[in-house]
Amino acid sequence: MTVFPLPATLIEKHVSAALAEDLGDAGDITTLATIGANKQGKAAINARKAGRLAGLDVAAAAFRLVDPGISLTARATDGDILKPGDTLLEVSGPVRAILSAERVALNFLGHLSGIASATSHLVEAIEGTGAKIVCTRKTLPGLRAFQKHAVRCGGGYNHRFGLYDAVMIKDNHIAANGSITNALRAAKKELGHMVKIEIEVDRLDQLEEALKERADVIMLDNMAPDMLREAVTLAKGKAVLEASGNITIETVREVAETGVDVISSGWITHSAPNLDLGLDYLDT
Amino acid sequence: MTVFPLPATLIEKHVSAALAEDLGDAGDITTLATIGANKQGKAAINARKAGRLAGLDVAAAAFRLVDPGISLTARATDGDILKPGDTLLEVSGPVRAILSAERVALNFLGHLSGIASATSHLVEAIEGTGAKIVCTRKTLPGLRAFQKHAVRCGGGYNHRFGLYDAVMIKDNHIAANGSITNALRAAKKELGHMVKIEIEVDRLDQLEEALKERADVIMLDNMAPDMLREAVTLAKGKAVLEASGNITIETVREVAETGVDVISSGWITHSAPNLDLGLDYLDT
Amino acid sequence: MTVFPLPATLIEKHVSAALAEDLGDAGDITTLATIGANKQGKAAINARKAGRLAGLDVAAAAFRLVDPGISLTARATDGDILKPGDTLLEVSGPVRAILSAERVALNFLGHLSGIASATSHLVEAIEGTGAKIVCTRKTLPGLRAFQKHAVRCGGGYNHRFGLYDAVMIKDNHIAANGSITNALRAAKKELGHMVKIEIEVDRLDQLEEALKERADVIMLDNMAPDMLREAVTLAKGKAVLEASGNITIETVREVAETGVDVISSGWITHSAPNLDLGLDYLDT
Amino acid sequence: MTVFPLPATLIEKHVSAALAEDLGDAGDITTLATIGANKQGKAAINARKAGRLAGLDVAAAAFRLVDPGISLTARATDGDILKPGDTLLEVSGPVRAILSAERVALNFLGHLSGIASATSHLVEAIEGTGAKIVCTRKTLPGLRAFQKHAVRCGGGYNHRFGLYDAVMIKDNHIAANGSITNALRAAKKELGHMVKIEIEVDRLDQLEEALKERADVIMLDNMAPDMLREAVTLAKGKAVLEASGNITIETVREVAETGVDVISSGWITHSAPNLDLGLDYLDT
Amino acid sequence: MTVFPLPATLIEKHVSAALAEDLGDAGDITTLATIGANKQGKAAINARKAGRLAGLDVAAAAFRLVDPGISLTARATDGDILKPGDTLLEVSGPVRAILSAERVALNFLGHLSGIASATSHLVEAIEGTGAKIVCTRKTLPGLRAFQKHAVRCGGGYNHRFGLYDAVMIKDNHIAANGSITNALRAAKKELGHMVKIEIEVDRLDQLEEALKERADVIMLDNMAPDMLREAVTLAKGKAVLEASGNITIETVREVAETGVDVISSGWITHSAPNLDLGLDYLDT
Amino acid sequence: MTVFPLPATLIEKHVSAALAEDLGDAGDITTLATIGANKQGKAAINARKAGRLAGLDVAAAAFRLVDPGISLTARATDGDILKPGDTLLEVSGPVRAILSAERVALNFLGHLSGIASATSHLVEAIEGTGAKIVCTRKTLPGLRAFQKHAVRCGGGYNHRFGLYDAVMIKDNHIAANGSITNALRAAKKELGHMVKIEIEVDRLDQLEEALKERADVIMLDNMAPDMLREAVTLAKGKAVLEASGNITIETVREVAETGVDVISSGWITHSAPNLDLGLDYLDT
Repeated sequence: MTVFPLPATLIEKHVSAALAEDLGDAGDITTLATIGANKQGKAAINARKAGRLAGLDVAAAAFRLVDPGISLTARATDGDILKPGDTLLEVSGPVRAILSAERVALNFLGHLSGIASATSHLVEAIEGTGAKIVCTRKTLPGLRAFQKHAVRCGGGYNHRFGLYDAVMIKDNHIAANGSITNALRAAKKELGHMVKIEIEVDRLDQLEEALKERADVIMLDNMAPDMLREAVTLAKGKAVLEASGNITIETVREVAETGVDVISSGWITHSAPNLDLGLDYLDT
Repeated sequence: MTVFPLPATLIEKHVSAALAEDLGDAGDITTLATIGANKQGKAAINARKAGRLAGLDVAAAAFRLVDPGISLTARATDGDILKPGDTLLEVSGPVRAILSAERVALNFLGHLSGIASATSHLVEAIEGTGAKIVCTRKTLPGLRAFQKHAVRCGGGYNHRFGLYDAVMIKDNHIAANGSITNALRAAKKELGHMVKIEIEVDRLDQLEEALKERADVIMLDNMAPDMLREAVTLAKGKAVLEASGNITIETVREVAETGVDVISSGWITHSAPNLDLGLDYLDT
Repeated sequence: MTVFPLPATLIEKHVSAALAEDLGDAGDITTLATIGANKQGKAAINARKAGRLAGLDVAAAAFRLVDPGISLTARATDGDILKPGDTLLEVSGPVRAILSAERVALNFLGHLSGIASATSHLVEAIEGTGAKIVCTRKTLPGLRAFQKHAVRCGGGYNHRFGLYDAVMIKDNHIAANGSITNALRAAKKELGHMVKIEIEVDRLDQLEEALKERADVIMLDNMAPDMLREAVTLAKGKAVLEASGNITIETVREVAETGVDVISSGWITHSAPNLDLGLDYLDT
Repeated sequence: MTVFPLPATLIEKHVSAALAEDLGDAGDITTLATIGANKQGKAAINARKAGRLAGLDVAAAAFRLVDPGISLTARATDGDILKPGDTLLEVSGPVRAILSAERVALNFLGHLSGIASATSHLVEAIEGTGAKIVCTRKTLPGLRAFQKHAVRCGGGYNHRFGLYDAVMIKDNHIAANGSITNALRAAKKELGHMVKIEIEVDRLDQLEEALKERADVIMLDNMAPDMLREAVTLAKGKAVLEASGNITIETVREVAETGVDVISSGWITHSAPNLDLGLDYLDT
Repeated sequence: MTVFPLPATLIEKHVSAALAEDLGDAGDITTLATIGANKQGKAAINARKAGRLAGLDVAAAAFRLVDPGISLTARATDGDILKPGDTLLEVSGPVRAILSAERVALNFLGHLSGIASATSHLVEAIEGTGAKIVCTRKTLPGLRAFQKHAVRCGGGYNHRFGLYDAVMIKDNHIAANGSITNALRAAKKELGHMVKIEIEVDRLDQLEEALKERADVIMLDNMAPDMLREAVTLAKGKAVLEASGNITIETVREVAETGVDVISSGWITHSAPNLDLGLDYLDT
Repeated sequence: MTVFPLPATLIEKHVSAALAEDLGDAGDITTLATIGANKQGKAAINARKAGRLAGLDVAAAAFRLVDPGISLTARATDGDILKPGDTLLEVSGPVRAILSAERVALNFLGHLSGIASATSHLVEAIEGTGAKIVCTRKTLPGLRAFQKHAVRCGGGYNHRFGLYDAVMIKDNHIAANGSITNALRAAKKELGHMVKIEIEVDRLDQLEEALKERADVIMLDNMAPDMLREAVTLAKGKAVLEASGNITIETVREVAETGVDVISSGWITHSAPNLDLGLDYLDT
């Protein structure tokens, strides 16, 4: 899988907002008061812990938007495996600008690399099984495009981006329609031919009903490995099967080995801890 | 300490953006295709795990902004201690609107309550020591006001909100000025009388220099408990002392018992895991 | 097929912008100078020509956003068939507000109903064939969500909303990959399980190649009816077939009768003429 | 008449919004998945049909905003007469960027050139009569500045841009004031010296009343050619006369030959069909 | 002359921005820390000095946007003459909200009433002469619509609102065209029939040239009263005459008595001092 | 004291908005109609009156944002003392762009330099006393960051920027808490360690109470010089003392000589007159 770059306009919009959040109306008063406008310097962002890189273009944008005169040299690429001490980005130019952009750059980079790292742990845990790790809509408000990008940097795939780009029929939708059959027929009747339709099932008889109505994807919600295996036996090749619910690094391989196609995790976007990274100033 | 409400205009701006992120141009196509416009329903947001509540007004706004006709009944308040099963918010009205707003509401509520819960663990761990837990600028881009609010819901206090509202002199600022003395004098000379000045020190001789120049706050960076105790002996009553660096639930009490005034943690905002909450539909 | 409401926040955002475009900084100077603030009145939006209604909520929002005190009574619903003289919306309240909102309301309503009407002509022309009319990305910048909604009001379906929600592999993508096979494999390998994949073909051998690689949807570009029929024979049931290229009211039925599933038209969104509607003031 | 460039900041704002509408959070997933980041290419936007060019700077901005590294060579200028096959713009650079910007560029260019072409047909039809074709406020929401620019590209002139920049007194304003005389006096008394005042009349006695009160411009609403000629006899040289109502390519010359100064058409902005243009990729 | 209300959407947009500027991310920390959420109170905005009122709706919006639950009673209207002690607006509701909105409300009200007051002094000084006081484009960035409104509240009229709504030909435009005649002909040839054309002249021969070309308005720049009188003799009834340059309360009547139609002042918008107003809390 | 540059992103945001306010949808129609696109020219912004410079970067941004091809040479720096005739900025490039940006550039520059000049008069009047002049929150809505910057250019210091970055306890906050002691304790208990706390007092016994509770800053509201002197005797060295209320150029030195630390003036931001500056075109 390739890592896709984030749209440049998305990066600029969110990094500008983050800089405004940190600089406010008065700016970086510490730096303005203690560092001269002409002082030049050099620094590098280095990994402090092992992990997976995500957000380097975003971090670079933070420096560039504070001062287009800063010069930036990337020493790594999104998706790279990081060892402690690895240099990711070198920056040189006015010290004021470097100091003022530092925290915004690190906040993006540490958070996104944390997600990439968490994802990569799950991906590595299921290596060879053929299953894919995917993210969910359990993302942090305003950061979804960035978090979904980070998941890909960690070797995961993206589920739908929002309520708008694919159908996911859950128990309430089913209940309101009386049956899985009715709910799937309603979705197919109402929506265009470019929309994939997924439905959530808890039991194997529901799975059979969903297969009969040719759902594109079936989410097997919180099923134990044995039931997942039965589901795979029933459905393999007829629909994409997605296992979901309480996926952890300890349980993920067992789930993957049942033969499901896709395993989804909310944890990698809503709870992955920050990856430890820092900016080190270099003597010049 | 009281929990302050977030400014209403901040809530509206961020929740609207989060809804736009989730609904896109096509809206909640699953719900539109499978649920009738007139179907009414009732649901409740319930805690699945124990923790501390933050973001209830934000979650409520998600429902209200999707449909002002939804009726909302708060069953808890930000800052409340939660047990599994506690009901936080009851919503009733058009099922379409409830389903379309659900994820945005839960994404805010789970994230912010996660921060409040993580904060409260540190706060409880140091109970009786007189020290305070504070957050940092290591927040997730675009969410700082919300995260700082959540820290207060967990019993913590806020450090500065950004680069603009207080001075924090770090090693690079000191180096550029030649000495702690020079850096502090520069800050005092340049800035107005309403700005607090903090300086970061690694050693006790630096602490003495900072005290001589009457820094308002001194950050003791990554000092071991013994050195912190010495610092307290030297400085107590002359400046506010802030301990910082690798604070964990295991180490925080030992740090607090050294007598420092304030203990700062980046972890509570950049790495606190989501608190498990869910929306349960009620038969009507 | 049901008509879905547009997200309320989308309506408000675009109608506010349209009002700002028309009112500028000085406001409706004609009305301010010649109509007193207290003058009340009543008016109705009526169809002048036959057609299909789209955009009634949008038109209503124009009046409501200029003055929340205007009272509005809808006499029709999006998707309704209109005869000349039919009343769509009654407004009453301050005359100043009615006059100031009138043009924005009519500009939206006439344009969107024009699209719905044009779509409905194509839909009616192919009645009974089982094919569906769909729109494209050939929309007017900034109005896509509204135009896609209008297509549904006319009985058409939506194709993908943008570059982001489905794959459409065209000749350039194929050329860059060396073959249809390679292009389809690349898309499947790179993208998640919730994304439908369509590919454009000009010849029947390409169609066979696309079927072998299990494209979800195949666009038959500019094929004559005979070739379309052959394509249907080859592919029916194996992939959704979309006919595209120079679809007109004269040719559409012949195309539909070949047995294709979907017929796409750029004309309905980029060139449909305005439906004639007007606001008539009522004596009170 | 010269074609004026659109303000650069207007172009950037609207093209950015159009790109965001098309790219969403995930970007051009087809291109990202099937075209390598380093692949370079070359393409040209060519006219497929005869017409009049409008929007070239806008189309160029679409490519530039997706990737500032794209190189652009204009082969025509807004206002140019186009023959089928004419090249308008050459683009070269990363193929990903060319493909991602293509549709937004063409959507603007085809729409605006459609308006310019429709306008030029009316302008040519009245050549030699001394009358001018002007547009109205019947524009598509959010696109008014662009559409008004396109009218000029087709040889037409602009009427007022909105409710804010000139007075247009219609029947309702007259009715509320009791008479044309009162309405005109109210407008003159209330408004500054830089505002032109137009009034709409249906009959010749109204025209005489409006002339007596020295209206700057008088709109002759839906008058037959004979009545228009009488109006010209009465008013020529005393006020600018504008003919309005159901102007078509068939009727426009007869109207112009009555001697009116200005003929306004809503059709050229709300109903002009798209001009057929396309992007052709060149082997390199 | 009537005072027109500002468009409600303009008020909301600018007052929201002003509140965000004052409240920031943390809100009104003084009030949050010292006043309970439930405390109710009552206050009145009173004039401290004599003057003319402008901006009451804007001030009211500040309170309403902080808390829709505040109740507001207007005791005056824009354009009213104020004596010291006059009550303008009564507010009652949560004390927190009153205190948090107070400064934004007063900042708008004091500034706009300052402009209205300064304008009214000029207007009163020329009473009976038949001349009108008008403002210019010398306004404070971002506040133009509000300042132009305040000028009307003081009895003045508005000149053009921006570069977009009327023509003003100055010396550089004349120089670039070789002569006044050429410049005026260029403007008439290029622009539509709804645009008024003003030209600036320094000498009487220029005035005659401008009259010959039928400029709508002629600005007599920095002419002494004697020359203004000659200009009036030459031009009265043929064009609107505007006197401009160093207008003060001492000189304005002499200028008005020359017979010019309009006198423009930059001072009333760029330099008018604040009108002293205050919020007084009432015991309840 | 050093003059700090304004954050570049703040400048761009506000100057873009100001240009949009002046250019509207139609642009600078006078210049477009009378000046050719290729005409090049040169001009300089010169001081017409003596004063203090503020806003040069902002003025430069106006030209650059209209046309990045304009070349700009600064001949002065913010904070410089200006004599009549001094050149501040030279601009050369397309005449259209120079003319279109001129007014926005001058409106910012004249207003901000007016504030800097007014501030510098107060600063010079108290030279040698050791007191500092500071501004308040009595600023013009939307321009606060720019006005606070201008105050520094005039040699003044900034008070808090908004309600969010420092505490200012006024009579209403005190009344709601029952006493100065209670109010100060509430603020200290509720708020973090990085927030300075100021309290307003009218009498000396209140001052003593505030000192006892260790307020950081005490505002002496509207006290006569004798009482100020007593306050200084009581409080010097224990808290920062701020004199406030009706500060004028005539009274400021007497106040400063009482020994207070800080003197605040609302007048310098809400009422300072524009500094006279102009753009002069140079023959080329």
